[in-house]
Amino acid sequence: MKANYQNDGLLIVVSGPSGVGKGTVCAALREKKTDLTYSVSATTRQPREGEEHGVNYFFETETSFKKMIQNEELIEWAQYVGNYYGTPRRFVEDTLRSGKDVLLEIDVQGAQQVKQRFSNGIFIFLLPPSIDDLRERIVGRGSETEASIHNRLGAATDEFKHVQYYDYVVINDRVEAACERIDAIITAEHCKKDRIVMMNG
Amino acid sequence: MKANYQNDGLLIVVSGPSGVGKGTVCAALREKKTDLTYSVSATTRQPREGEEHGVNYFFETETSFKKMIQNEELIEWAQYVGNYYGTPRRFVEDTLRSGKDVLLEIDVQGAQQVKQRFSNGIFIFLLPPSIDDLRERIVGRGSETEASIHNRLGAATDEFKHVQYYDYVVINDRVEAACERIDAIITAEHCKKDRIVMMNG
Repeated sequence: MKANYQNDGLLIVVSGPSGVGKGTVCAALREKKTDLTYSVSATTRQPREGEEHGVNYFFETETSFKKMIQNEELIEWAQYVGNYYGTPRRFVEDTLRSGKDVLLEIDVQGAQQVKQRFSNGIFIFLLPPSIDDLRERIVGRGSETEASIHNRLGAATDEFKHVQYYDYVVINDRVEAACERIDAIITAEHCKKDRIVMMNG
Repeated sequence: MKANYQNDGLLIVVSGPSGVGKGTVCAALREKKTDLTYSVSATTRQPREGEEHGVNYFFETETSFKKMIQNEELIEWAQYVGNYYGTPRRFVEDTLRSGKDVLLEIDVQGAQQVKQRFSNGIFIFLLPPSIDDLRERIVGRGSETEASIHNRLGAATDEFKHVQYYDYVVINDRVEAACERIDAIITAEHCKKDRIVMMNG
């Protein structure tokens, strides 16, 4: 008898309301956990200076992007300000099969699409400690008008309701603490009984 | 809206086949995680020098121990070499209610009893990387005859079958690694969605 952790990687989806700090937490996580692969998105927007195809984004024409949608080659997609963005299924599946965990940082609408296609993903909802805290964060960016702050807080309050679809909730009280919790969740998930392979010999 | 981790502690049950190193791993965990409360067992055996009632054990007479069994005040119990040993429900429940996690290091038979009474406990099965590794561990103790090694390995092989009742499997390849995995499991379990309390205000 030999016991081993299984070879397939896990799809880790980090989402949460607008303004909660997903980007900051995931960037810190990326630094801490170098064995984690970031999902590379497909987009129809023009590459910016220094951006590489297959590294920062998969750059697609609108025609090729729409074909990917039709062929169900995207596990989620959305349109922002005239451009399409999406997560290519193939990159995610190939990386998981190679035994690496994939991290997907995504808004709540995108996460809901992913959940339909990857129900065995690990869904983590990042929450601010309080609405007041979220307001401070949004105001702190200094780039928003009073009306847009009001709108964003309203949207965030709606997005809180999505928490029910998630496996874990990580409170983003401090970036380092949130990061450690996500790290622990990934380690624990690999230890789930059903992920252990027992072999004779 | 305010989000918080709930106040109740978790019951963490660490079990596994005979000889796998539960004691060593739990001792290391105890040093690492000082916020973890060890369950204090009740016993009918005589206190040894320096042992304190309520710290090392709850020392009971056979009459009072049997009364505890009858009154369902023990979440598991067994008899070894003429003495009774058991886990008092009250100590566990009081500690959990005070918000502290309780660690119970216990054999697979005891764990099965606990599971019937505390189905919301976190059940962790410690496994050796292989049967060969377990044999080396048992032989390494130097205190066992060839026949008793054979018996212990046979018992351990039977005990492996209990893995199906557990939530997590931790492979004890290195004490420090096993310890970190259990630590991560405890952190992750506190982040489970159903353990988050959302309050207005």
